[in-house]
Amino acid sequence: MNVILGGRALPYRTVAFDREQNAVLLIEQRLLPHEFKIVATQDFRRTAEAITTMVVRGAGAIGATAAYGLAQGMRAFRGTDLKRFAVHVATVYQTLADARPTAVDPVNAMNDVLKAMCPGETVAEQQALVLAAAEEFANGDVVHCREIGVHGEKLIRNGMRVLTHCNAGWLAFVDIGSATAPLYAAQARGRRFHVYCDETRPRSQGATLTAWELAQQKISHQIIADNAAGHLMQRGEIDLVIVGSDRVLGRTGEVANKIGTYTKAVLAARHKIPFYVAIPLSTIDWNLKRGRDIPIEEREESEVLGAWGINAAKRREYVRVANPTSGARNPGFDVTPPELITGIITPLGILKPKDLWKRRKALGHVD
Amino acid sequence: MNVILGGRALPYRTVAFDREQNAVLLIEQRLLPHEFKIVATQDFRRTAEAITTMVVRGAGAIGATAAYGLAQGMRAFRGTDLKRFAVHVATVYQTLADARPTAVDPVNAMNDVLKAMCPGETVAEQQALVLAAAEEFANGDVVHCREIGVHGEKLIRNGMRVLTHCNAGWLAFVDIGSATAPLYAAQARGRRFHVYCDETRPRSQGATLTAWELAQQKISHQIIADNAAGHLMQRGEIDLVIVGSDRVLGRTGEVANKIGTYTKAVLAARHKIPFYVAIPLSTIDWNLKRGRDIPIEEREESEVLGAWGINAAKRREYVRVANPTSGARNPGFDVTPPELITGIITPLGILKPKDLWKRRKALGHVD
Repeated sequence: MNVILGGRALPYRTVAFDREQNAVLLIEQRLLPHEFKIVATQDFRRTAEAITTMVVRGAGAIGATAAYGLAQGMRAFRGTDLKRFAVHVATVYQTLADARPTAVDPVNAMNDVLKAMCPGETVAEQQALVLAAAEEFANGDVVHCREIGVHGEKLIRNGMRVLTHCNAGWLAFVDIGSATAPLYAAQARGRRFHVYCDETRPRSQGATLTAWELAQQKISHQIIADNAAGHLMQRGEIDLVIVGSDRVLGRTGEVANKIGTYTKAVLAARHKIPFYVAIPLSTIDWNLKRGRDIPIEEREESEVLGAWGINAAKRREYVRVANPTSGARNPGFDVTPPELITGIITPLGILKPKDLWKRRKALGHVD
Repeated sequence: MNVILGGRALPYRTVAFDREQNAVLLIEQRLLPHEFKIVATQDFRRTAEAITTMVVRGAGAIGATAAYGLAQGMRAFRGTDLKRFAVHVATVYQTLADARPTAVDPVNAMNDVLKAMCPGETVAEQQALVLAAAEEFANGDVVHCREIGVHGEKLIRNGMRVLTHCNAGWLAFVDIGSATAPLYAAQARGRRFHVYCDETRPRSQGATLTAWELAQQKISHQIIADNAAGHLMQRGEIDLVIVGSDRVLGRTGEVANKIGTYTKAVLAARHKIPFYVAIPLSTIDWNLKRGRDIPIEEREESEVLGAWGINAAKRREYVRVANPTSGARNPGFDVTPPELITGIITPLGILKPKDLWKRRKALGHVD
């Protein structure tokens, strides 16, 4: 999508690959929204580090980063000995898999890419096949998001006011995003609408990342405190809600997403406002049987007790907001039950949450 | 209530009067929770200034401050000429009334106090009568809050987890507070419970003021992001909600309070968690016919776009959190309908919101 630099809108991807330099190109997301910078990781260890330190974050984006990192590591191998190459590949794979141990996307992406290597009979052939597969993986991520947009844009009519929560935008994927895909597609069709970005405390991804994305794309938007959405709904000022998800249970239709999502779904149901969840198929978990069993990470207290921002001297700084002798609880996610969800926007169409399991074969479930 | 200073718990009021110095004593609330300081305003103009600049805030607290300020201004008059005294009184009254023009409490409090002056036949008598009336007003505020506690503490059982929103604590009154009164009364009876303080973005009064109060009083508590309460309710980790109010409509039972209150009431109703609103009788508006007509103040964007806190160098600082090219909407209050409210805790007992109008004579409504 676009980034406005020096007054001009230039197209970028969150993750890309430079064949000449054998480098992975990443948007340095820790500097956003206050600074835009591209980082080129020079070897697979630097790429793994960028995943660990959250230069890049978001399911699709870290999957593609790991896929490119694997190709990058393989391409750095000098020699023709297939056995020595296999040992090297194992090291690269393990380094990237260890970069964010609880995330499933890097490993899934790398497994995909590794399969493509098999027909290769020489090191050079395998290197070429893996790079092509990594490119395919990244392009696939973009295609899936574009298809979410194709199905989702029909929900957005002229003049609508759309609420989003957290960031499931192009910064979380290779491009386009999931929850943002319908917005970008509707804009491309010339439709005009307004987006309310939930601030999304405690990490404020709505105020920082989603607002930044929408500003680059020149989509009309305003940030609101997480407390304000209920009031706006009550006054008839929100027409539609679209969020992303970290995990959708294929068996039940339950949706795990950033803390606060459940609250917005409850409010939307009360006010009969359509509530949609936009996801690529890779977000569907076909195994887990109950949302109650999704582990809810308790994150650092400091996130709730203060905030990161830019001070008057333009320096990035953490300020402690809360009473210094008080502590906090900080659950990172919540689970929204299917009865509060109007539809799941997937690359294959919009489905009722309860229909995921019925349609599991078409959606890629393997028995 | 208590303030812990040098390891010792010392009793303070939010607003008090020093007869010797003819000074109003105020807790400098703008420094809380990071610093505790008492300000003594030396004349009625300084007292008005303290109201304007929010050294003191909260309905009961600014009412008492204006009442004391009026007495302070009158006592500063030198002379015996009743006509010249009356002119002086008018100046003092107007200065304090202008300190926060939209607030109704300072004017109501001063009108109460002025009535007490009538029997006085000399300047000195009138000065003494007004000071006594101001003291009576402040003590009355404390008595009302104590009575809220007497009725409300019965709701709090051992082991309960209580959610609060914003600050309707003793810092908003002369002492004890409204939403906090049942907590302090239950603690005095030896009951043990845990309080979750909603952060209450954008101004974070829950994380700063309520958490500070509870810490001074050694009540077990944790701050949560406003997004987290829904999740905790869903997991059965909240048993009771108590909030304050800026205005309760006597005719309908609707409750205006800090933005986000409505959201918590909707969530509590879904989870069948009792939701109470604690108020003194002065909070009841007997005139307005519909909650829809309560003006909802749109506050400064900067509140939503950033946060005030203490930096690593212990200096108070504002940081901009949000994307620099994005704006915000910032409604300050919302209105909760009576069907979501289990009860209104008043100094005269706990009432159903719909019963306020039936009981209007007992509650002080004058036809």
